[in-house]
Amino acid sequence: MENKKYKIVLIGAGNVATQLGLALIKAKHKILQVVSLHPSSAEELATKLKCKFTTYPEKINLSADIYIIAVNDKAIEKVVRNLKLENQIIVHTSGTTNIKALQNTSDNFGVFYPLQTFSKEREIDFSTIPILLETSNQKTYEVLKSIAKSITNGEVIVADSKERMKIHLAAVFANNFTNHLYGIARNIISKDNFDFDMFGPLIEETIRKIENDSPEDMQTGPAVRGDKKTMNAHLKLLSKNKDYQTIYKLLSKSIIKSSKKNK
Amino acid sequence: MENKKYKIVLIGAGNVATQLGLALIKAKHKILQVVSLHPSSAEELATKLKCKFTTYPEKINLSADIYIIAVNDKAIEKVVRNLKLENQIIVHTSGTTNIKALQNTSDNFGVFYPLQTFSKEREIDFSTIPILLETSNQKTYEVLKSIAKSITNGEVIVADSKERMKIHLAAVFANNFTNHLYGIARNIISKDNFDFDMFGPLIEETIRKIENDSPEDMQTGPAVRGDKKTMNAHLKLLSKNKDYQTIYKLLSKSIIKSSKKNK
Repeated sequence: MENKKYKIVLIGAGNVATQLGLALIKAKHKILQVVSLHPSSAEELATKLKCKFTTYPEKINLSADIYIIAVNDKAIEKVVRNLKLENQIIVHTSGTTNIKALQNTSDNFGVFYPLQTFSKEREIDFSTIPILLETSNQKTYEVLKSIAKSITNGEVIVADSKERMKIHLAAVFANNFTNHLYGIARNIISKDNFDFDMFGPLIEETIRKIENDSPEDMQTGPAVRGDKKTMNAHLKLLSKNKDYQTIYKLLSKSIIKSSKKNK
Repeated sequence: MENKKYKIVLIGAGNVATQLGLALIKAKHKILQVVSLHPSSAEELATKLKCKFTTYPEKINLSADIYIIAVNDKAIEKVVRNLKLENQIIVHTSGTTNIKALQNTSDNFGVFYPLQTFSKEREIDFSTIPILLETSNQKTYEVLKSIAKSITNGEVIVADSKERMKIHLAAVFANNFTNHLYGIARNIISKDNFDFDMFGPLIEETIRKIENDSPEDMQTGPAVRGDKKTMNAHLKLLSKNKDYQTIYKLLSKSIIKSSKKNK
């Protein structure tokens, strides 16, 4: 089963479709077609994947084994509204969309959610990415698991729609919010013309520390030490930026609260 | 100059003293003595560094070239109150303490601040860490730069006390606060018995993305997309944890605001 190659239609031509498409052809699956309403994106991705494309949903190729929807969450409903499949498998790749969105399109449906942040320009090394699966039946699960295993050595994790949404929420904290904090750090020092590169080793070490220990146990800094003098000095430095000050206060308060619970 | 080895007294026996001491002996400098009021820490570190120790500040060895104070910020003042040196160099290693704290102890004083997060148990690879320097005169700068270069290939950066404090503040955002967000992410998923390890590749990619581009340009997620439906669904999932909900709202609002400025 692990080695079976599937014929796939990719619906969508954005970041996820691009990176997933590249990983699928690397694993020797066959992409029959890219379907996207945006002519330039559709053509660009089809060129990358050396496959056909259409911008007319009604011209979707119906001879594939699997249909992968990788469009933004709002568009999923529109994609499936007029799509009726026989026994082919249809999946979406969304962290937040319920599996039920696909229930009227085929008996064999599921969710194939790679837990990663995708940018169109950056090729992603899929080999370590965990894939979260949810399926309408065991047969569909086996097929999706086989495809997942063909593109990653990372974990294949079964999560239902509610669990997946919580994981997606957690990912917003671990990825989107931390990225924003890096942006704030950069803004704070760039006024003095310092280069954000100097934070590289610190940021690396921050994530190394939590590879084996829980982040709460590894917490450092003025808040967890209860070092009010430093916190007040920091707040004073932020006096011209009330937004940053509010974030500083709230996160410090939250760290103090967690550390008390942790004791 | 680069190859000169110095005789050093280390005042303090905590995380920074430990990691810095290990890096200094690796670079073949000679640690004459560890000075710490805590007998067990002093002895433990002296054993690691194969040097002497004292718990009596008045028994400090006065024949060193350089005195490195690596104690918590509050204790720096106490350390220097009764210490008068001839021409030896004295430095502290604090991000937030003004260089002036040392001005009555010697004419040759400075700050030697490694921009890193230190834990006693984790040996730190000093070879990439940036060192921030501030000195009372050029001669002291040359000596400290030589020592910095002997323990790291990272940048040696000149920053005055005000700049260093802003860099330290930025480090709180880039390190302490991001670590806390990892802790929140872990708490959100651990209730369903999922393993935080699944976020490894996502967290790695988040920091890879900002190696060459600014974090603001690399921002992803529901807030920067203006995806209110997902944000509302996330807030609903957090309805039992008002603290997390408040953090989610504030950081999302801040991301939206930054992205508007960025346009």
